[in-house]
Amino acid sequence: MSILQTLTVLKIGGNVVDNPSLLTEVLKGFSTWGGYKCLVHGGGKIANVYLNKLGIEPHMIEGRRVTDAPTLEVVTMVYAGLINKQLVGLLQSMGCNAIGLSGADAAVIPAKKRPSDPIDYGFAGDVILSDIPGYTIKSWLEDNLTPVFCPLTFDKQSGGLLNTNADTIASSVALTMSSFFRVRLVYCFEKNGVLLDPDQENSVIPTLNAADFLQYKNEGVISAGMIPKLENAFTAIAKGVSEVCICGPSAFRKENPIQGTLIS
Amino acid sequence: MSILQTLTVLKIGGNVVDNPSLLTEVLKGFSTWGGYKCLVHGGGKIANVYLNKLGIEPHMIEGRRVTDAPTLEVVTMVYAGLINKQLVGLLQSMGCNAIGLSGADAAVIPAKKRPSDPIDYGFAGDVILSDIPGYTIKSWLEDNLTPVFCPLTFDKQSGGLLNTNADTIASSVALTMSSFFRVRLVYCFEKNGVLLDPDQENSVIPTLNAADFLQYKNEGVISAGMIPKLENAFTAIAKGVSEVCICGPSAFRKENPIQGTLIS
Repeated sequence: MSILQTLTVLKIGGNVVDNPSLLTEVLKGFSTWGGYKCLVHGGGKIANVYLNKLGIEPHMIEGRRVTDAPTLEVVTMVYAGLINKQLVGLLQSMGCNAIGLSGADAAVIPAKKRPSDPIDYGFAGDVILSDIPGYTIKSWLEDNLTPVFCPLTFDKQSGGLLNTNADTIASSVALTMSSFFRVRLVYCFEKNGVLLDPDQENSVIPTLNAADFLQYKNEGVISAGMIPKLENAFTAIAKGVSEVCICGPSAFRKENPIQGTLIS
Repeated sequence: MSILQTLTVLKIGGNVVDNPSLLTEVLKGFSTWGGYKCLVHGGGKIANVYLNKLGIEPHMIEGRRVTDAPTLEVVTMVYAGLINKQLVGLLQSMGCNAIGLSGADAAVIPAKKRPSDPIDYGFAGDVILSDIPGYTIKSWLEDNLTPVFCPLTFDKQSGGLLNTNADTIASSVALTMSSFFRVRLVYCFEKNGVLLDPDQENSVIPTLNAADFLQYKNEGVISAGMIPKLENAFTAIAKGVSEVCICGPSAFRKENPIQGTLIS
């Protein structure tokens, strides 16, 4: 048995992307990590700022964006252009050889348009996991590049981009790459981890297994918003990802970092 | 002496990018070309459309954009996001494994900010030719990828993007890659080639050498706008590019293509 090298896939949420000082702290930490690494970023509120500036009303159903054609044009500009290149530039200035990618680039995140029934989310994409070109990503990593994925996937048949949740892109990349590497998947969001009490930032649950999760869920301890994130995490572990961590920007502090919640 | 493989660097101008039917025709032709290839695209009028929509007055001096901070944000969205990903998506749907790049991605087009004296163009970049990572581009080409460059370069020290003329990016890539390949540099713009009479589309000069160019320039035959393009072309030839061609979209037609002007 060979000893696999480690790949860390870090997903940073919109609240981190939107906060320049948190963002710099997180990227500084990330840029010093050893081993292979990828970054996946969310869209943040910047898309809504530009939609509003351009007179397009943002439209969400159950926390997910409804992406009509004008909205797709704006999120393509904001995600693949503004945010992605800002992150790549910051990482490059920190000595990390980042390369920004949408799902269309090298057709790296193939997807199909989500069916319009029961809810029509417009140009929303569901990742086709089996079509992700893992060998291409592997070759970039081995060339010392750090891929930076924006939350846009690609429909090869139409040639068009699709809007996809960044958490899903992160877990899809992590799952695909677990054929080649020991993969750690790290979700960095605005809280310090999974909290026992959502009002107490110091109530981080240090480790969580499937049995604990079920119990906490049944007891109503874990907040509704956290449940899909954790279900994704347990699915990733079940399918070959070695480790999932849910943490906040405090995990990237040099002094007294808060490690977050380790899912095992 | 080894027989070098051919790399074609195609630059498409704004008037091609802005015209969906011309663009499709050109990309369809490009996608079927054999050998290694890169695409470089200009910005087109789409940047001005978005600048106007966002209440930012486009500002040009001598045909070059003055790029203040808000303008840089918009051109980053439009060039690296909207146009670049649209082109990559179209090429992918035509079976060409395109990957879109700004100068920041893998720090592929390093530049320094142009001095503000005598004219302050703001965030405008002058390419640092010696720092282009030719081996990285070579490895992408050998992995069967087709790089698609947008007209943004990268200042590694500040971590910021800079606005740079797409013709310059095309000739910089062509020059760098001529260490590895026999390089053909093709400029595709709205005319059919270098014209003897600017009002006669069928007055294309089929081949042009430096002596002819000097004579035509002195006689005032070649239009003012064409002179910097041709001077760039002759510089590229002098520095190692094998062939420069200036043509129009008609060169990509299946039936009766007009080959344009070959610079030698």
